[in-house]
Amino acid sequence: MAHRKLRLGAFIMATGHHIAAWRHPGSQVDSGVNIDHYISVAQLAERGKFDQVFVADSPGVWEQGSKESFGRQGRISHFEPVTLWSALAVVTKHIGFVATASTTYEDPYLLARKFASLDHISKGRAAWNVVTTGNDSVYGNFGLDKHPDPEVRYEKAHEFLDVVKGLWDSFEDDAFLRDPDSGVYFDPDKLHALNHHGKYHKVAGPLNLERSPQGHPVIVQAGSSEPGRELAAATAEAIFTAWTSLEEAQAFYRDVKGRLAKYGRRPEQLLILPGISPVIGRTQEEAEAKWAELQKLIHPSVGLATIERFWPGEDLSQWDLDAPPPYYPTPEAGRNSRHHVVIELARREKFTVRQLYEYLAGARGHWVVVGTPQKIADEMQQWFENGAADGFNVMPPVLPESLEDFVDLVIPELQRRGLFRTEYEGTTLRENLGLDKPQNRYAVKAAKAA
Amino acid sequence: MAHRKLRLGAFIMATGHHIAAWRHPGSQVDSGVNIDHYISVAQLAERGKFDQVFVADSPGVWEQGSKESFGRQGRISHFEPVTLWSALAVVTKHIGFVATASTTYEDPYLLARKFASLDHISKGRAAWNVVTTGNDSVYGNFGLDKHPDPEVRYEKAHEFLDVVKGLWDSFEDDAFLRDPDSGVYFDPDKLHALNHHGKYHKVAGPLNLERSPQGHPVIVQAGSSEPGRELAAATAEAIFTAWTSLEEAQAFYRDVKGRLAKYGRRPEQLLILPGISPVIGRTQEEAEAKWAELQKLIHPSVGLATIERFWPGEDLSQWDLDAPPPYYPTPEAGRNSRHHVVIELARREKFTVRQLYEYLAGARGHWVVVGTPQKIADEMQQWFENGAADGFNVMPPVLPESLEDFVDLVIPELQRRGLFRTEYEGTTLRENLGLDKPQNRYAVKAAKAA
Repeated sequence: MAHRKLRLGAFIMATGHHIAAWRHPGSQVDSGVNIDHYISVAQLAERGKFDQVFVADSPGVWEQGSKESFGRQGRISHFEPVTLWSALAVVTKHIGFVATASTTYEDPYLLARKFASLDHISKGRAAWNVVTTGNDSVYGNFGLDKHPDPEVRYEKAHEFLDVVKGLWDSFEDDAFLRDPDSGVYFDPDKLHALNHHGKYHKVAGPLNLERSPQGHPVIVQAGSSEPGRELAAATAEAIFTAWTSLEEAQAFYRDVKGRLAKYGRRPEQLLILPGISPVIGRTQEEAEAKWAELQKLIHPSVGLATIERFWPGEDLSQWDLDAPPPYYPTPEAGRNSRHHVVIELARREKFTVRQLYEYLAGARGHWVVVGTPQKIADEMQQWFENGAADGFNVMPPVLPESLEDFVDLVIPELQRRGLFRTEYEGTTLRENLGLDKPQNRYAVKAAKAA
Repeated sequence: MAHRKLRLGAFIMATGHHIAAWRHPGSQVDSGVNIDHYISVAQLAERGKFDQVFVADSPGVWEQGSKESFGRQGRISHFEPVTLWSALAVVTKHIGFVATASTTYEDPYLLARKFASLDHISKGRAAWNVVTTGNDSVYGNFGLDKHPDPEVRYEKAHEFLDVVKGLWDSFEDDAFLRDPDSGVYFDPDKLHALNHHGKYHKVAGPLNLERSPQGHPVIVQAGSSEPGRELAAATAEAIFTAWTSLEEAQAFYRDVKGRLAKYGRRPEQLLILPGISPVIGRTQEEAEAKWAELQKLIHPSVGLATIERFWPGEDLSQWDLDAPPPYYPTPEAGRNSRHHVVIELARREKFTVRQLYEYLAGARGHWVVVGTPQKIADEMQQWFENGAADGFNVMPPVLPESLEDFVDLVIPELQRRGLFRTEYEGTTLRENLGLDKPQNRYAVKAAKAA
């Protein structure tokens, strides 16, 4: 087995992951609709030999909060991910593209088709981040009064994935002859209608697009809830996750890898990539000054909007920012575990209101590491070598500036340590990630029957 | 008023419009999934100063026919249009992109979003060809046992378009301040939720994407049926249509332009672009030889598949190809008028079976002109100057070869005659087509109230 290497994704969200990034001079203020910005950022990530770029997504506006805070947030207007990645695919050669799309609100035939199209356009560099969508500003855009319950969303997600993968297999890999002399373009016996008729979906098929260079796009998952872990273990090839301590990350890593065997899968078939938001300075002081500069840019109304979900119904604008919260809430039943963790942390550390929102505003609760390239590489190496990560989803606080810092300062350090590639290994995202090309289900069936 | 110029679209379908094009050495045999082919074709069309490129589309496989003919057709596997155009947008500068998408089978929020995204990515060069979808291999992909009735499809299309246009207006044009000093990114008072609650759709909004460079993508329509004409008159800015004689085209032109006034629209706000499939030779003999060469490539089973819909239930494979059909069918009630026209023509001209399918196979019944650049320019000029066309949707029989011929031989002839541009007039598709940028509905309302 070749020496194990870090897998790195660049999570290139809008103006950057820090909530006030758009006010920072190192950001591109209109990045959400600036294609030239995204082209240069993708090319920068490719120069850094990143495996992939990634965007989160939701078919609705992001968090609103108070009207005062709403107008102060820089993520409201942005490209749709698949169209964006498609554009970037033809101005890059190696980097992969992970697009988020919802199994609750998209249609399986249309989704299968656009992702297969992206995989063809990129010559095998597409990935789909499967989400069930929990953002409250979405359901109304699809005629609903609330989201389906999480159990329904996850059950539907399993079926949706099965349908989409079936459509991707419509044509066997060798279905196309394209022989001008005989006049035979393809072999109709190697085209298969899915004829799926399930609990949530009824889809005839076949897809009107041949099998893509990767067999099918890489499947990514990003939830850490119990049903999210199970969906990932059953179907995902990479998982994005959020932990702020080595111990938590290790526990998650063990848990998820331990679920694979029951689906007949090997541990290396699911890559675990925690988020890391690196604030990089040539010295520790420089890094800390950068961080402080960013934190100062958070308008109090925007800070409060990040914590008001912990105190539903409360008007936080009356609170003293430099005192601890007047009381600690009991999280509602069913809230995810991060919710509890944050409240406990605030209580234990006696955070002021401002300190609490600054803690969360950095990268929405993801792991922030402030320091020199060596310190950041040390932390990454520790997680990588101690069963906490197969790589990372790098979340630059300010874009493009922090990604430039990472590419110019941290990547060379990781390469010097032999932890990261110096050249791309293959031409497809699967080849670079070391993931197998999935076999076509109909070809497998035919081989077994023979 | 500036001198009226021809508007030209390049309909760049797969290997070309001739049904046997993929067998011709001038075609790119795997064009449906070959992004480099599409890049060079779009750049070629841009070199020719075309207004736009266009693809037809249907979320399902195209015509099947007998198994024998099915495997001999080259259109089965192809990119999804919006992902394709998005990729081409960043490797071109001037040309517009017309993508076909269905109001019957797509979701209005997701459709509004992807087309707005394409308009931003292309910096104002997107258009949507609105179709209601009648291809029988589609409905099963969306859980249905048949298409909704045409009246329902068209009624739904009107509402769908209204929703999509409303979503595109979510942000007023001046909603974004993006002022780092004050920390105000946008003005929430200039963001409008649609809150549409209609017969077919319930959509809250707002869209998570600001107004695009053209206000919204250009709206195109491609049906010539009665409800199609009415939908075009109410909403479209360009219409693609199929006529083979000047008189028919003039009648259509008069009819559709005559419907605009009742919607408060001027005749120049809807461009009428018939299809033309030009087979170009430096001499008439060369052009005719090219055409004969193409016709010879039609396998009889593929030819018969183009006419079997006229004789439903009949096994045409037993017929003598070189004799007239054994009888002429009475078209079913409700069939479109082209159906009747073709049968009448076959009877009048005493076409053999082979001659009939060769007539239809050229460009699926569109206008085929075989001749020198001068002859083709003469025909186009005649239609353009005699109330039959504002321009044309050029349908190259073989791609890329026939488009190269058109760009190198016919375009210069049109330019010499002063009928076509020598440089692009603007930076957006609307500017090049001479179409107004639509006003935002909320801004208009505010202006009226003031």
